[in-house]
Amino acid sequence: MWFSPLLLLLPLAVNAQRFVRFISTDGKEYTGDAILPSGTSDASKSTSARLITGDILGDFQITNQVKPIQKLLAPLPNERVRTVRCVGFNYAAHDEGANITIPDFPILFYKPFTALNTPSDNIPVTAGYQTQGNFTSTMDYETELVVIMKKTAFNISEDEALDHVLGYSVGHDVSHRGWQIQRGGEPEPQFSMGKGADGWAPWGPAIVSTNVIQDPQTLNIWTKVNGNVMQNDTTANMIFGVKQLVSFFSMGITLLPGDVIFTGTPSGVQLEKADPVWLVNGDVVEVGLENVGTCTNKITYT
Amino acid sequence: MWFSPLLLLLPLAVNAQRFVRFISTDGKEYTGDAILPSGTSDASKSTSARLITGDILGDFQITNQVKPIQKLLAPLPNERVRTVRCVGFNYAAHDEGANITIPDFPILFYKPFTALNTPSDNIPVTAGYQTQGNFTSTMDYETELVVIMKKTAFNISEDEALDHVLGYSVGHDVSHRGWQIQRGGEPEPQFSMGKGADGWAPWGPAIVSTNVIQDPQTLNIWTKVNGNVMQNDTTANMIFGVKQLVSFFSMGITLLPGDVIFTGTPSGVQLEKADPVWLVNGDVVEVGLENVGTCTNKITYT
Repeated sequence: MWFSPLLLLLPLAVNAQRFVRFISTDGKEYTGDAILPSGTSDASKSTSARLITGDILGDFQITNQVKPIQKLLAPLPNERVRTVRCVGFNYAAHDEGANITIPDFPILFYKPFTALNTPSDNIPVTAGYQTQGNFTSTMDYETELVVIMKKTAFNISEDEALDHVLGYSVGHDVSHRGWQIQRGGEPEPQFSMGKGADGWAPWGPAIVSTNVIQDPQTLNIWTKVNGNVMQNDTTANMIFGVKQLVSFFSMGITLLPGDVIFTGTPSGVQLEKADPVWLVNGDVVEVGLENVGTCTNKITYT
Repeated sequence: MWFSPLLLLLPLAVNAQRFVRFISTDGKEYTGDAILPSGTSDASKSTSARLITGDILGDFQITNQVKPIQKLLAPLPNERVRTVRCVGFNYAAHDEGANITIPDFPILFYKPFTALNTPSDNIPVTAGYQTQGNFTSTMDYETELVVIMKKTAFNISEDEALDHVLGYSVGHDVSHRGWQIQRGGEPEPQFSMGKGADGWAPWGPAIVSTNVIQDPQTLNIWTKVNGNVMQNDTTANMIFGVKQLVSFFSMGITLLPGDVIFTGTPSGVQLEKADPVWLVNGDVVEVGLENVGTCTNKITYT
């Protein structure tokens, strides 16, 4: 077999597949392209990564140097994520369960970037969100496909949208229903106080490139609480898909590289249930997305 | 008269009074302490400022060097403002006008930092927010006292709140009622798409120090549209005052230096009116706050 000498000079991987940020065994922080163990596509199981030099939101290079992963961090440092957009009521079945009209337009809300968390650290619940007298702590899970922007977008069409996306992660839109709804304000409660506390947006374990996930509307998505499956759906059931969301949110608004979009959660949240079992101190929540992986975080009263 | 030699070595001004960021006649950008012309406390009338070196969110020094002001910018660059918090329904009379129940807790929503604008540039209204067929462009004004954070705050009490504040500005929470309410989502519309477009949060003209405004709940606040007074109230009518808002928003949430809080608008907005006259292309909106000054921006279809 004959190899062109030119071909041998090409780097091993031209495109990164699973961007991860991690602490290695030397205690230092790195960005890399995760190497998956055989038999899994869950980047949280990766024990090593090829180092990436440069900026994954700009120019970068994948090297052949492999480093062990000791702890995965959020794929971008909090400071690089300028705006966290989130979508309400974006799965058909979720809406039926919650007795909600299918919205005509995507329902946008924000989390502050200080809510972002790693794929494995605790979710802190401070006194104001714990049960106080008659006000029950109504902590709930929401597993979501997360879109990470690569290029600046302003008034872009649906056809242009995916060209502006770096890739996808899975995220946990941690929600306190009492502060989200009953104490969110009448007659039009704003979700902000119920979803914005520090650490209430774990995400990761990787940003899986659009090279790997070419169609984000075909992925299984699930939640486990203490090992029990609570949500189990597919992103095919999203009312507004990624293309529509990115285009819509760019309407007169500049989306920046590193902005992330939490795209809404499927049915199965406790909010829908007649007898909800709210998350309490010590509960372990796994949020999962096919071909991306899992984040596993413990609810922790602080 | 005898002067101590030691006294002569002290700087002229120990505390800045009106932090401004501006372009001078040399075309360069500076931060300064605005010098007010006699007879006004409106920093937008300042034609010169004492230069400040260092970081107004950290360590800085006021120099004796005076520079002419050619154009006032937003008091902080957009990049220094990490999170823009806003409050809904926070004036007693505004709520009565809008037939709203007085809320039990502050109603929090966010604007993306990309919405921030200078005290004088145009407010762009792109096609998606203009009248389209049966969907009327329902652009409205909201003048608000703006709080600028100086120190990191987390779970702080009302008594500690003002120690964490750098000062106060006036801001314009530009609002499109159709996207805010009717198209914000049923049954719990989120205000985000109606308030988050680029340039929809002019603020300034200065950050007036807490040395100057020791009690933020005593200030006249007003709006003029094309010179006509549309809102005219006092911050004494705020339901939740600055101390309460800063303390409440720090509940399990880290507020950072440079974060800003738009504290809600008084009565007089078009949303309240039986026959609203919405803002249209070319309308000039002045938002004003006593002892702070004015921002004057033109609604501009783009």
